[in-house]
Order: sequence, then structure tokens, then C-alpha cells
Amino acid sequence: MIQRISAIEEMKAVAAGLRRDGKSIGLVPTMGYFHEGHTSLMLRSAADNDDTIVTLFVNPTQFSPCEDLEKYPRNLERDTKLADEAGASFLFTPDNASMYPAGYKTYVTVEGWSSRLCGISRPIHFRGVTTVCAKLFNICAPDRAYFGMKDAQQLLIIKKMVRDLNMNLEIVAMPTVRESDGLAMSSRNVYLNPEQRKAATLISAGLTEAKKLVEAGETRAEKALEAARAKLAESPLIKIDYLEAVSEDTLEPTQDVGPGTLIAVAAYLGATRLIDNLSF
Amino acid sequence: MIQRISAIEEMKAVAAGLRRDGKSIGLVPTMGYFHEGHTSLMLRSAADNDDTIVTLFVNPTQFSPCEDLEKYPRNLERDTKLADEAGASFLFTPDNASMYPAGYKTYVTVEGWSSRLCGISRPIHFRGVTTVCAKLFNICAPDRAYFGMKDAQQLLIIKKMVRDLNMNLEIVAMPTVRESDGLAMSSRNVYLNPEQRKAATLISAGLTEAKKLVEAGETRAEKALEAARAKLAESPLIKIDYLEAVSEDTLEPTQDVGPGTLIAVAAYLGATRLIDNLSF
Repeated sequence: MIQRISAIEEMKAVAAGLRRDGKSIGLVPTMGYFHEGHTSLMLRSAADNDDTIVTLFVNPTQFSPCEDLEKYPRNLERDTKLADEAGASFLFTPDNASMYPAGYKTYVTVEGWSSRLCGISRPIHFRGVTTVCAKLFNICAPDRAYFGMKDAQQLLIIKKMVRDLNMNLEIVAMPTVRESDGLAMSSRNVYLNPEQRKAATLISAGLTEAKKLVEAGETRAEKALEAARAKLAESPLIKIDYLEAVSEDTLEPTQDVGPGTLIAVAAYLGATRLIDNLSF
Repeated sequence: MIQRISAIEEMKAVAAGLRRDGKSIGLVPTMGYFHEGHTSLMLRSAADNDDTIVTLFVNPTQFSPCEDLEKYPRNLERDTKLADEAGASFLFTPDNASMYPAGYKTYVTVEGWSSRLCGISRPIHFRGVTTVCAKLFNICAPDRAYFGMKDAQQLLIIKKMVRDLNMNLEIVAMPTVRESDGLAMSSRNVYLNPEQRKAATLISAGLTEAKKLVEAGETRAEKALEAARAKLAESPLIKIDYLEAVSEDTLEPTQDVGPGTLIAVAAYLGATRLIDNLSF
């Protein structure tokens, strides 16, 4: 049965004990409200490691004041059950006051990369993500940490932080899990009304159009983006935040698409902002 | 006999091996050109831990373009001998290209604290210090790391980073080692000409004046600072960068002096900038 831990010092002691006993530790950092994307990470971690720690923390430093921190969906009992069924040994649920006590001042930033793509509309977001991951990596001492490819920029930034700061773990990327109509699973999908939910399928459909073109031999990024943009334009409910082709090595815009490039999109349906991407 | 290691991956493997064998590791991060301040840290680390790693890296990210990175004094053979005699097991000497490879982007910052005191004249300095320490802590996996109290702001900022990011080590502070006339030992003292060297004693003498006042019952910071300032004014060769009384908890200026406060000074003698401090 999964063990729930909320005190940082207890989690540290448990992780240190596991390491002393020669156990490998897998970490799945989450903000909760689990869907199959999350559980796919847990299942993989449980297969790869002796013990899996799932962390559930709706991290305030990655939300701007105008964002959905307070109303971010939560369901601890259901999440505990799902993590248990997916093979996790521990669910770590620290609170804000212990993660960011009064006078907290230290931040980790991947400069430049954090202000591109999602970082334009969410300027402090990635600083919050890298900081909380650095903290969770220190607390849980994992051998491997698992992240979904839906959050492509987050994944690239975390990999970069780990490499730059010589951190002692491997970052494992797992494929985006989708609903049957193609919509990427996201805890934020619950915000959508039925009309928005229907229109939201155009996001993945747009990426599929781009993919078809590239697979047919198109190498010009602008042509692939045009095809995606045309698809997204089929619903007036969708407002594009960005739609870009970038290099996975630098996050800089590219003229050509192919291996090593990423087409990334963020779009609003009402107040709900969804992201998706396609890599080659 | 001390073992010199320059490759990051080799150092990581050695440290991981020591931990696997249950050995405790002490770390002494330095920029080399050792004096008794450095060796006092090594001796203490060697007494406290099974193995001591001394790192020698003149860290470019803590120097501004106009500072003394290129001419910073170096003497690897002498340093190796001194570290060996002080009981260190390893001397880790990475190069710039492996510590900061092309495209390096990740920095750790203790916000606010890094722009006070020394941070005013050296705006990127502490960002460089915290970043390189985070890297060295990950590479060397120490149980304890040793820092001198001469660099008081550095010590407080590193302790804050370790606490905020939940790092798994203890920071051990060691007293400033002084020349017989009171001057705090520093690798930069070699830059002083004989006249400057003589005048430099006024820095510690000024702090001693402040200390006498406080020990006699003075609690007003301004009075203690006045006494120090008067002493420093005895030589026209000394130009004060800052002389301040600050809280050790917040680095903010204080009106009162006593336990928990620090009087810190930085002063130029020609182009050489020296620091010293006094805590109660």
C-alpha cells in the first residue's frame, strides 16, 4: 500500500534510507489530478526502479498572480488510489509553507530558454518549474525522474538544468497520452465546456496536418505551420497564443523542419490555455 | 598521497564510490593560491570526514569583465603539496570548458541578498558563486562543505541556498585566519605594494575599534561604524567601498549592533579590493 508523506525531513530520511539500502528511486513530479498521462509515467517508473516516489504539489512559484493556482483541480483521495494502483511506493505532498517558508529567496533559472514560447505569456513559469524540481530532486534523491512530452519546453529546460548543474539523475521522457479523439490529456481539460472540448481537438488535428506534410517531404517550417494554422482556424473558439517550429537544442525558431525540431502550439479556449507539440 | 582529478565524470564516479562505501566526504571549494585560511578549512575537514575533496577552480562566472580573472594568482604545484599536507584525499581541478560548455544557461540566485554589500560593486559575483557551488556540490556529493568567515556574505548566501533548495549537506563556517598584524589572509594580498600592505592593517584595526566600543556597551550601529571609519581614514591609500552593519538573518542594514549582526567592510587599496568583517 502506498505511503503518504507530507514532511520534507521525513521524505528526505526515507529517500536517504532507500539509497543506503542500495534501492533505485524513480521520481514522478506532478501537480495532481491524475490522468493517464501521469499514470503512464508512474507505471514506467515502477517498472524501471525499486521504489517510485510520486510528488503532488501545486507549485505556487510557477503560477502568475492572474493564473489558475487557486482553482487548479484537486482530488487527493482519488490521486492516492491511482498512484497506488500504478505501483508507486510513496506519495509526497508537501505544503506551501514548508516548501517556501517566509524569507524564501533562491531560484534556479535556465536563462533565455525560460522566456521563449510559453515563457512569453508566462514569464515566471519556468523559473518556478526549475526551482521546484531542483528542490524535489534534492529531497527525493532519485536515480531517474519522469516527465511527459506534452510539456515539451518544460522537458527540454529540465534536461538542460540537470546537465548544466551536473545533477545526479537521468531525465526520462514519456510520450504524450491522448484522448481517443486526439486531444492531449491535461488536468486543465476539465475546465472546457462541451463546445470548447469539441473545438480543442483541432489542436492535435492541426499538428497532424503538419506531420502529414513533413512526412510527404515538406521541409519548410512555414509550410508546416500554415497547414496547422489553417486547421486551428476552423473554430472561432480557438485563439492561438503561439505556433512555432523550434530547434530542440536551442529552442530558437527554425526555417526547416525535420529531426531535431519541434512544432509547439499553445492556444486558448475561453480562459483555458492548452498546449501540445510534435517532434520528428 | 593526494590524487589530482580534472574530469567531472571521474570526480563524480569517485565521490559516488566513496558514498557507496559509506565514507563521509568533506568539501573545500577554493580558487587556489592557498594560505592558512584555506589550509585551516582542509585540516578541519580532514578531521571531520573520512575523505576530503579540495576543489581548485578560478570560477569565471563570479568575475565581471573588468575584474582580475586573468591575473588571479595561481600555483598548482604548491597548492597540491599544501592540500596533501593538510590531509586532503583529492584535488579537483576542472577546466572552464567542462564546467561551462558552449550553450551553458543555468544559474542559481539568492535573490535580493546577492545585490547587497559586495553585490553592489560586483553585480554578477554571487550568482556565479552560488551556481558554481551548486555544481560542485552535485559533482562531489559532500556531507559537509567548509567556508571561511572572511567571506561573510558568501557564507550567508550559500547557507541560504542550501536551506532554500533542500540540499543534502551541512555548511561549516570557520574563523578568519589573520596575519600577525591583523590583516585577514587573502590570495589578493599579494597584489599589495609595501605601502598598501602597511595601510591595509587599518581595515582590521577599524573593526577592532568598533568591537571595543560594542564590548564596552555601545549598541548604536552608527557609533560603531564611526569608530571604524575614523580608523580607516588614517591612511589616504584606503578608499572605502562599503562599511555597514547588517542583520545576519536578512542582510538588511540595522540600527543596533549585537548578537546576530555583522559589521562588514570592503575597501580598495589601489586596484586591490579587500574585505573583512566582524560578527558578535
